[in-house]
Amino acid sequence: MLEAPPADSRARARTLLMGLQDSICSGLEALDGEGRFAQESWERPEGGGGRSRVMKEGRIFEQGGVNFSEVEGDQLPPSILSQRPEAAGQRWFATGTSMVLHPRNPYVPTVHLNFRYFEAGPVWWFGGGADLTPYYPFLEDAQHFHRTLKGACDSVNPAYYPVFKPWCDEYFFLKHRGETRGVGGIFYDYQDPEGVLYKGQDSQGLAAAVSGATGAISQSWEQLFALASACGHGFLPSYVPIVEKRHPTAYGERERQFQLYRRGRYVEFNLVFDRGTIFGLQTNGRTESILMSLPPLVRWEYGYSAEPGSREALLTELFTRPQNWLDDPGLVERCQPHQAVG
Amino acid sequence: MLEAPPADSRARARTLLMGLQDSICSGLEALDGEGRFAQESWERPEGGGGRSRVMKEGRIFEQGGVNFSEVEGDQLPPSILSQRPEAAGQRWFATGTSMVLHPRNPYVPTVHLNFRYFEAGPVWWFGGGADLTPYYPFLEDAQHFHRTLKGACDSVNPAYYPVFKPWCDEYFFLKHRGETRGVGGIFYDYQDPEGVLYKGQDSQGLAAAVSGATGAISQSWEQLFALASACGHGFLPSYVPIVEKRHPTAYGERERQFQLYRRGRYVEFNLVFDRGTIFGLQTNGRTESILMSLPPLVRWEYGYSAEPGSREALLTELFTRPQNWLDDPGLVERCQPHQAVG
Repeated sequence: MLEAPPADSRARARTLLMGLQDSICSGLEALDGEGRFAQESWERPEGGGGRSRVMKEGRIFEQGGVNFSEVEGDQLPPSILSQRPEAAGQRWFATGTSMVLHPRNPYVPTVHLNFRYFEAGPVWWFGGGADLTPYYPFLEDAQHFHRTLKGACDSVNPAYYPVFKPWCDEYFFLKHRGETRGVGGIFYDYQDPEGVLYKGQDSQGLAAAVSGATGAISQSWEQLFALASACGHGFLPSYVPIVEKRHPTAYGERERQFQLYRRGRYVEFNLVFDRGTIFGLQTNGRTESILMSLPPLVRWEYGYSAEPGSREALLTELFTRPQNWLDDPGLVERCQPHQAVG
Repeated sequence: MLEAPPADSRARARTLLMGLQDSICSGLEALDGEGRFAQESWERPEGGGGRSRVMKEGRIFEQGGVNFSEVEGDQLPPSILSQRPEAAGQRWFATGTSMVLHPRNPYVPTVHLNFRYFEAGPVWWFGGGADLTPYYPFLEDAQHFHRTLKGACDSVNPAYYPVFKPWCDEYFFLKHRGETRGVGGIFYDYQDPEGVLYKGQDSQGLAAAVSGATGAISQSWEQLFALASACGHGFLPSYVPIVEKRHPTAYGERERQFQLYRRGRYVEFNLVFDRGTIFGLQTNGRTESILMSLPPLVRWEYGYSAEPGSREALLTELFTRPQNWLDDPGLVERCQPHQAVG
């Protein structure tokens, strides 16, 4: 029997996640300088609702969305019940904040964040993560992003990052392309005090990468709440310095076209594989809010492959494969000939 | 026990479907006048292969793909076995020709065609269809497309069109948008001599539309082969006159932007719902050939809705809902105020 959550668990999760939406939107508006988030509040006939915030045509962000939602229902969809059979027949509650940013400048990476909390009868769990998808390869950006998220994880428990980092590589994997979505970050799901951090739910593809990191640690509701808070509030410091560094870089049609092409992979992942998208569509979610993650303009090109030795090839060959960004000294040399910009 | 197919069934299916690819490509090159199909032949490690033909940057077609493939394997994926449990554990053979065309001019509709033949141990079946996705609403185009396909169906059996037309509306349905992909056409699957034309496999959404049309008729391998041939070779006459009529129409940025936006629905359908795409990705198909159906340039816009009374609104409200294109005299009046172009 799972330890019961605090009596005010839903209110605390809501406050955390709405506050996260607020602070992220404020930070991004300050960063963009011109773009503003427009909010739409909505209600779901089956229970609950949310507030969707979208920035269009900002100075830095071509489009960005930050959604908060809090929804309830009578029966979780099969994809979740297969992981939590104890939730069958139970009324469920879920609240989450999710964000996807599509910058204009191809040197600025796309980024995604999601933190969520579920209760369903006797069970409850936290999930979350953040991952970075660059269009052009900069080792120091990948390292900064990972270092910051690792710091947030470590502040709660140093056992987290070594598990959540490979889990992210595994989850954001496009099987039909043999590629990760980008340089990853952290990802976790179904976290509760039963303590098994990683149960191999996402065991296709990259499961081997997490062998040796599948142990269990003790964790309470409070620790998991603290983890969501630390990582959620760690997002702006993980991303804003990268934007400030890359946004001033001039780019041309080649870089823009490559960005539009790579955005196609983002669409493929979100529509074919993403658990949040599928959950939203399965539970009669608000379609416009769910698909706000799709880029404003996207290109597909049959048979494209990057010129050997180019920065585009480095992106594909090294930055869409799992790497030990913080611990592999060989990465510097492998990136060296490609780092020049312009 | 199913009647066995002819001894040369695979060779005959192959000849029909490769010939269909050839004649469609020739017809489309003649129509385009500038674009040419480039062919890539490929082999699949597990058995079989195909020839992918793509036209890029033609005069009329921004991109078009016509694929032929012939593949084999040891075990069909679960999505098919659930429909044909007798095929479990049986080595399977499948051959098909599929096509998607993305025209440049927003007044010219996108169109899709697929005809396929399966054998797996004691069972075999034919599937196929063609459907039209306009960006701007022209009643006479929808009627011409349906009338031509109905004629092809009727040449084999007049019982087909009244079943395959609503089946198409049901199959090409985007549940999360509450829209059909376009004005439909015909769709059929799992057709064999057991004779039940429509088993309600696609029973979500629009099942009610086919009530009264779910009867069984007698049909042999030869009749189903003739059906694929008639409908396949009926494609050019169903589509070419529409292109010839609409392509000369001048258009502006408004029409182009609406076309790019509506192309997003095509991506959503193909990646979330399409059985052929899912089969290809599940059976380790050639990713580039499978995703050749995706448009070359696509736009998403959060919260878009068409101006009331506009042609864009008519497209959404009438041309993405199932209609009796050939039998509903009220459609003329409903389309009247919007038919003006330019």
